[in-house]
Amino acid sequence: MKRLVDAGRDILQWADELAVFSEPVFAEKGQLTVTYLTDAHIQCAKYLSELMAEAGFDEVTRDALGNVIGVYHGDGRLAKRLMTGSHYDTVRNGGKYDGRLGIFIPIAVVRELSRAKKRLPYPIELVCFAEEEGQRYRATFLASGALVGRFDPTWLEQRDSDNVSMSEAMQRAGLPGRLEAITTLQRSGADYLGFVEVHIEQGPVLADANLPLGVVTSINAGMRGICTINGTAAHAGTTPMTMRQDALLAAAEISLMAEARALKDLGSVATVGQMQVPSGSINVIPGRCIFSIDMRAPSDSQRDALVTDVLTQATAIAARRGVTFECRESMRASAAPSNPIWQGYWERAVEKIGQPVFRLNSGAGHDAMMLHHIMPQAMLFVRGGNRGISHNPLEIISSEDAGLCAEAFIAMLEEVASAHAKA
Amino acid sequence: MKRLVDAGRDILQWADELAVFSEPVFAEKGQLTVTYLTDAHIQCAKYLSELMAEAGFDEVTRDALGNVIGVYHGDGRLAKRLMTGSHYDTVRNGGKYDGRLGIFIPIAVVRELSRAKKRLPYPIELVCFAEEEGQRYRATFLASGALVGRFDPTWLEQRDSDNVSMSEAMQRAGLPGRLEAITTLQRSGADYLGFVEVHIEQGPVLADANLPLGVVTSINAGMRGICTINGTAAHAGTTPMTMRQDALLAAAEISLMAEARALKDLGSVATVGQMQVPSGSINVIPGRCIFSIDMRAPSDSQRDALVTDVLTQATAIAARRGVTFECRESMRASAAPSNPIWQGYWERAVEKIGQPVFRLNSGAGHDAMMLHHIMPQAMLFVRGGNRGISHNPLEIISSEDAGLCAEAFIAMLEEVASAHAKA
Repeated sequence: MKRLVDAGRDILQWADELAVFSEPVFAEKGQLTVTYLTDAHIQCAKYLSELMAEAGFDEVTRDALGNVIGVYHGDGRLAKRLMTGSHYDTVRNGGKYDGRLGIFIPIAVVRELSRAKKRLPYPIELVCFAEEEGQRYRATFLASGALVGRFDPTWLEQRDSDNVSMSEAMQRAGLPGRLEAITTLQRSGADYLGFVEVHIEQGPVLADANLPLGVVTSINAGMRGICTINGTAAHAGTTPMTMRQDALLAAAEISLMAEARALKDLGSVATVGQMQVPSGSINVIPGRCIFSIDMRAPSDSQRDALVTDVLTQATAIAARRGVTFECRESMRASAAPSNPIWQGYWERAVEKIGQPVFRLNSGAGHDAMMLHHIMPQAMLFVRGGNRGISHNPLEIISSEDAGLCAEAFIAMLEEVASAHAKA
Repeated sequence: MKRLVDAGRDILQWADELAVFSEPVFAEKGQLTVTYLTDAHIQCAKYLSELMAEAGFDEVTRDALGNVIGVYHGDGRLAKRLMTGSHYDTVRNGGKYDGRLGIFIPIAVVRELSRAKKRLPYPIELVCFAEEEGQRYRATFLASGALVGRFDPTWLEQRDSDNVSMSEAMQRAGLPGRLEAITTLQRSGADYLGFVEVHIEQGPVLADANLPLGVVTSINAGMRGICTINGTAAHAGTTPMTMRQDALLAAAEISLMAEARALKDLGSVATVGQMQVPSGSINVIPGRCIFSIDMRAPSDSQRDALVTDVLTQATAIAARRGVTFECRESMRASAAPSNPIWQGYWERAVEKIGQPVFRLNSGAGHDAMMLHHIMPQAMLFVRGGNRGISHNPLEIISSEDAGLCAEAFIAMLEEVASAHAKA
């Protein structure tokens, strides 16, 4: 097994170089922000195109959504491609590895193959997804979604905060900005062996376990809702404790109950991220409380049980406190369990490079969730430093871990090759 | 005992008549708002002056703060006066009995005495306090405060939201607006027998007990603070439940602990009225949570024990959850326990009119808290309808309860008279 120490260092350098492009108002503050089809975003696409061409990709193109696509031909034995990739857009004031690591690792790997003049039995298609974070437009996963026939035509007329519609933004970026051009991007699962995605973990689990790599078992199912408690506003001084209908205390009890319920499961999480007492005063018992809830679990059934239990108990808490509880669901996403065969490729690859096989589920959503709809998929996570902090400038990885990931990626490609040679 | 059914009806009519004066922007919406020295406030003072003169007060004057003062002479046996009164300003969109009932009851009582040509051994001084609610300027209790030497000279330069200083507002209202004129308003306790104040309860206790009147044992001691929890913001999907430092959950636990602790005492209350997660997101674990706390108890020592226990336990909760807790105290007010002799006058008066003696403490602050500094004081509460709602247009009382209160007031005056006749 060839060690890829230099590749790890190059990957970190590429991340630094790509992070030079940031939207002006953020760049001034030294922050990284690259949202869909801004000038910085277009510069990123150009950088990635050039990097891929230099690395030895046989074809590099930009599609109607701004995805940058590179193909490294196979030796001709298999027509079906292996697809890989991740996104190059960022959240506001984000980190430089989120998404982008899943682009740089395959580039480093193709460079290795190309340098060794090695061809696999199948072509590799690397997609640098133009949009995953849903920052400029409310159209999260628009790029990977379009590849699986999930591009919502109404998105083209959606306007950003400067009143620029998505189709206008596309035209300004030199793209057609027409639905017909986007519809043709849809892939057929029959043309692909499967999809793999490398991503930084964006959580503390690998750092805590002191391991560089983790094999993803599932991308979590999720549910989000906005909850409203209505109680009775009253004078904080004159209303005895026993005669209150305090909306905030009900919300507090529900938040702690959701925490306790999530703790009972392996892999479930429940978070109250926002809470407010509208026009609350220091001397008034809260008559109303509004809070968000986000619940996730590795499978749909585990998520459903979690949601049902939390909402049932919330209703009971509200009734006991003489207040009303209502939860308006704003999102419910299905889990994307890894394909067992493809998860196996990653597991054997990690083993082959001498690392322990550590399995974890993904609490965050990834482009692989979209490709999941049309082909087998499995992901590999790389440890983040700083306790795994992400969506934050403090997001870091080590060059050693990046190098190990590139080694595991090559080992995975070989696993796929030998599996299909046998077949 | 003469029944004062008609007086009860008149009191409600006076409240309706006085509520005609409201600041234009609120009056348009049918709301009652009378803040310090606005045109509506000056019209109220005029109305009260005329009402007092008609009722038979011997002297009616307006002082340098805008307090309207009426004196009903005694028969000359005692020079020391009994002082009574309450405030005629309101909160924004307030109720028409808060404060004002404590003005109308003595007016109705003096009208009865005057009609019967009856003189007590001592003079009655009714002060209609111009300001108690601290709405236009941050100078709560400025009117009653000035009478006990607690007028802060810097208040004169304080500006309202229209940039009008208090001294300018005074001059526009035809008052001197100079500190010297205000300083002379200070009373000497030696000139008074004591202070009594009637007020609507502003809470649900009397309504719940189905009783018209309640004798106040103490005006609660209070403490207010703004608390800050600092935890660690992190991804709501990727951070396992066991690896979180969630600021909001610590705040939730502290809120419920404060509730449980206050419930252990007779008469203690603890309220978290405001809570926010600054720049919180639905999918981010709260890294910071800011909330208010308001704690009150019938005595200073009970308040101190409550505050100490809550802050100690809050620190322990924060430590267990790996977050920090800080409470910045913004107010600590001493309790004003009723003078036992004067509380006794009210108790015997209530008994004499055939009502059960029900004792309760006052969770809200009142002008009596200020007079407490220089003379004995005791208050009587009247039941509020609508579960005692106050600071709200839904604030109501019944004419029967107002009549009973006027009867109790006369009985109290007689108790004071006979107590001093004996002495």
